[in-house]
Amino acid sequence: MSQYRAPLADMRFALFDVLDVEKQFAALGYDEVTPDIVDAVLDEAARFTETVLAPLNAVGDDIGCKFDSATGDVVAPPGFKQAFDQFVDGGWTGLTNDPAYGGQGMPEVLGAALTEMVDAANLAWGNFPMLSHGAVEALNRYGEDWQKEAFLRPLVEGRWTGTMCLTEPHAGTDLGLLKTRAEANADGSYSITGTKIFITCGEHDLVPNIIHLVLARLPDAPPGPKGISLFVVPKFKVGKDGAAGERNAARCGSIEHKMGIHGSVTCVMNFDGAQGYLVGEANKGLQAMFVMMNSARMGVGLQGLGLSERAYQNAVRYARERLQTRSLAGAKFPEKAADPIIVHPDVRRMLLSMKSLVEGGRLLALHAYSQLDAAHHAQDADARAKADTLASFLTPITKACQTEWSIENTYNAIQCFGGHGYIHEHGMEQLARDARITTLYEGTTGIQSLDLIGRKTASTQGAGLKLFLAMIDDFAKQHEGDVALAEFIAPLKAKAAEWAQLTTGILQRAAKNPEELGAASTDYLFYSGYVVLAYWWARSVAAANGSSRNAAFKQAKLDTARFYFARMLPRTLAHKAAIESGAEPLMAMPAELFGD
Amino acid sequence: MSQYRAPLADMRFALFDVLDVEKQFAALGYDEVTPDIVDAVLDEAARFTETVLAPLNAVGDDIGCKFDSATGDVVAPPGFKQAFDQFVDGGWTGLTNDPAYGGQGMPEVLGAALTEMVDAANLAWGNFPMLSHGAVEALNRYGEDWQKEAFLRPLVEGRWTGTMCLTEPHAGTDLGLLKTRAEANADGSYSITGTKIFITCGEHDLVPNIIHLVLARLPDAPPGPKGISLFVVPKFKVGKDGAAGERNAARCGSIEHKMGIHGSVTCVMNFDGAQGYLVGEANKGLQAMFVMMNSARMGVGLQGLGLSERAYQNAVRYARERLQTRSLAGAKFPEKAADPIIVHPDVRRMLLSMKSLVEGGRLLALHAYSQLDAAHHAQDADARAKADTLASFLTPITKACQTEWSIENTYNAIQCFGGHGYIHEHGMEQLARDARITTLYEGTTGIQSLDLIGRKTASTQGAGLKLFLAMIDDFAKQHEGDVALAEFIAPLKAKAAEWAQLTTGILQRAAKNPEELGAASTDYLFYSGYVVLAYWWARSVAAANGSSRNAAFKQAKLDTARFYFARMLPRTLAHKAAIESGAEPLMAMPAELFGD
Repeated sequence: MSQYRAPLADMRFALFDVLDVEKQFAALGYDEVTPDIVDAVLDEAARFTETVLAPLNAVGDDIGCKFDSATGDVVAPPGFKQAFDQFVDGGWTGLTNDPAYGGQGMPEVLGAALTEMVDAANLAWGNFPMLSHGAVEALNRYGEDWQKEAFLRPLVEGRWTGTMCLTEPHAGTDLGLLKTRAEANADGSYSITGTKIFITCGEHDLVPNIIHLVLARLPDAPPGPKGISLFVVPKFKVGKDGAAGERNAARCGSIEHKMGIHGSVTCVMNFDGAQGYLVGEANKGLQAMFVMMNSARMGVGLQGLGLSERAYQNAVRYARERLQTRSLAGAKFPEKAADPIIVHPDVRRMLLSMKSLVEGGRLLALHAYSQLDAAHHAQDADARAKADTLASFLTPITKACQTEWSIENTYNAIQCFGGHGYIHEHGMEQLARDARITTLYEGTTGIQSLDLIGRKTASTQGAGLKLFLAMIDDFAKQHEGDVALAEFIAPLKAKAAEWAQLTTGILQRAAKNPEELGAASTDYLFYSGYVVLAYWWARSVAAANGSSRNAAFKQAKLDTARFYFARMLPRTLAHKAAIESGAEPLMAMPAELFGD
Repeated sequence: MSQYRAPLADMRFALFDVLDVEKQFAALGYDEVTPDIVDAVLDEAARFTETVLAPLNAVGDDIGCKFDSATGDVVAPPGFKQAFDQFVDGGWTGLTNDPAYGGQGMPEVLGAALTEMVDAANLAWGNFPMLSHGAVEALNRYGEDWQKEAFLRPLVEGRWTGTMCLTEPHAGTDLGLLKTRAEANADGSYSITGTKIFITCGEHDLVPNIIHLVLARLPDAPPGPKGISLFVVPKFKVGKDGAAGERNAARCGSIEHKMGIHGSVTCVMNFDGAQGYLVGEANKGLQAMFVMMNSARMGVGLQGLGLSERAYQNAVRYARERLQTRSLAGAKFPEKAADPIIVHPDVRRMLLSMKSLVEGGRLLALHAYSQLDAAHHAQDADARAKADTLASFLTPITKACQTEWSIENTYNAIQCFGGHGYIHEHGMEQLARDARITTLYEGTTGIQSLDLIGRKTASTQGAGLKLFLAMIDDFAKQHEGDVALAEFIAPLKAKAAEWAQLTTGILQRAAKNPEELGAASTDYLFYSGYVVLAYWWARSVAAANGSSRNAAFKQAKLDTARFYFARMLPRTLAHKAAIESGAEPLMAMPAELFGD
């Protein structure tokens, strides 16, 4: 079975030494979130995830969720409900939410550290609270006061959970095609009718009520994405007084058999004139959907990170224990039957790629979350707007890169285990199967890539990119002449300049041919992700050097940064060449020539 | 459920137009293997694999193999035995084997086309005949005459199947550590005692007897790999007259629960004084093992190719059918609710990477098999030696690259399906789970990479590489001044020169520090694979242009070649940079600093 220990030392380094959250929390008015409080939260989150959630990870995979087709009920894997009760009792569900509705008002960046641990310990279980998070965001922003009291508070308190009901069989990426309809009732409620698919945690027995946020069309709605409205539809009807009543006509029709995340139920949800209430303005549902979706995308990025961390830990442990053949340079442990496989350069290549992506990725994610905090709580409007722009820019990068890297990292972890990695009982293959969903749901990698190059770059004249380039520039200036950092800063500056040029080139070509955006998109996303990580690795070395950490910690950061610059950053060469080859090699072949 | 149609048009193009097998078969003395015969074999193989094997692929995955712990018996999935009986009746088991022992004496390259189809149709089922193939090779080369009559003939005829029993719990890559022992009996037989793991098709109900080729140590054997001998150990004892007798003490102790290939049973085999016979010389077992292993490695390369082909076919079909959003350049099918997703550049990027790796990979594999034929049947010794060197050089490339590409191709196929790709019923996730074993068994990608740079390059002063570079040079000279090919030949020549330089650089560094070999190995393997495929794509365009194929076929080859050179070949840039960064970034960090 794969093991998990929360990486508290690296989390603390990222939060305190690199991101300097102590200063940020004070500046944003989080007066009570002292370093002691942060430490206590991290310690307790580690304890909970290591001892309660991690042991249920294999159970969830092996037993999965059970669907009763007669009643439409779903039973979660053994122990999942008890773990959720403990999570609620600990106040974790509302950690980052508004105290006015029962939350603890902690910064999002701290919530992200918690979520990484939850997902590493038990990804499937983590979906139950994660989906609530999106519903909370949407209700918080667009809900009427009574809706907040009736729906938001129980979600924050963890008494109920939430879902996002967007996809239909013929409408996934293209929500404009959706057919679910909403008709107004005399009492101000609506009757919702239609079928939604891929509804994560749409039905289960963890809590007595489930709050569905459903996209549907009003009878007079314009066609396409501008005719979509958002409704809140509870499993058990809820009056304006917040009291739960009779069963609503929102039922699970079946559950999917999936490659992984067996402990997380994926439902077909049938709404058959179910009672619901409009959230926000009519026909403005897509706007509210994006609020939920952005929250979920950041969350899925953390899922990738968590899985990568767990894969790495287990691969390192195995590579130290497994004795097999000798070092090419001669026996390094002559007293043993063979050397541990960690002596081999190629095993180290795999381990260091994982380590550099995990620790660099953690900074990418936590920094993005810190910008969400700043976007909501910074003192002046300009700072809020900048932070919002940066967070928006980083959202597709953290979602897509972290999830793609989780595919790579879980792949490499299995390779380190050799044939044993393919055997179920070792737990490594579960990590790979679970990781496989993360590049698909909440928008595939292709969709994230289009979001980055289109909405977040072309449509904003590169506003987010400019802010990130300014960060690189500031850092380089700050450490100009620092000989210990010169080996990182010179290539980082060169990559930053290249990134800017590459972006300009794409946008120029796209002005003539919009397909150039799509042709560049995925390679541009990866290119961007690798440059962002180069920045965080350079900053990690600077932060480690300037910290009170011990020599071993500093050495590990330095060696990993050197590996990253030598072995990972050159991937940008291939992505750049692919981008610069343009759309023609992709678009030339007629569709009918792809095969029979 | 995923579908399969044998890619006969592309196979015929590869065999006849690119590799010119008609000429080769004549030169090697295969007088009876006329184009009509080849066509008939391909057609019948397609019919069998499409109609008999492909429908059992999902069955094998869903039901798997059943183990009875009381008896040690294994029951294969429903239909597997009946399909094997038909395979035997069709004479397929001995297609490429010696007619003296019941084979049909066909060329290996034709056997490879059959095997690709078998593996694409049903990878798990394909393991049953594949493992026999290795046993046949070893017995053919090292078996005594009576052993050939008693064991080889029933294997060739498909009445029995074979296994390779190498791995032990503490001895996988490092067979020198194995502990299974063999003691001589008075009658010339040996008693074999020990436990082997990961024995593919070690026990099953497809045939009445199973022939295990077992590595073990004699009592006086020197330690390490030079003290290993090979034994043939049947499930039911076989006398020198070939008659099967009583049950031998070779029993399945348990079967593994795996990520995929559920229809292919993976056994723990317990030998408890089992009767066996020495094959070849005492303490020379590793040599015989390599004969089996090379056969199996080439076979696993075909597994990767077959899975990639099937993944590609289904992804193309889905991308043409799935309507979702509009082209960035404006609606291309305005009469439909949305455009099919094949209009999108990024979907085409995924499809074309699959197509270029599959069709290029097919040539890599078939060419390597054609060299096996030449190594055995060429008229003069020099030609045989050269073909053997080239086949040896290409074995790790075809094994590791095709299997790694099958990971990438099945990944991309799932991405094309979006969330639907994660759902079991679509069959795409099974392809990814099945593919995941191929980079692990018969030597991981890391082991193949060390084989390529070490045994096949450093130890031979680059003999194999020189032969491949000469092929590139010949081709370039032959088409000098051909304007239609200039766009491919110029970059191909440049890459060939770079490949040579890169190799020299690695070997020079390795002369001072042997860890440089391991540090370069995996990137060197991929670098080599991409240059090899560039050669095959350039030759494909040349062969298509010179053939009687229709304009659409020629256009598809040209467009795919252009995509390959623009979008895939640049991956060599990243691999080259990683190689040139050397061993230091991998070796600097002490093992204890990798984590807690």
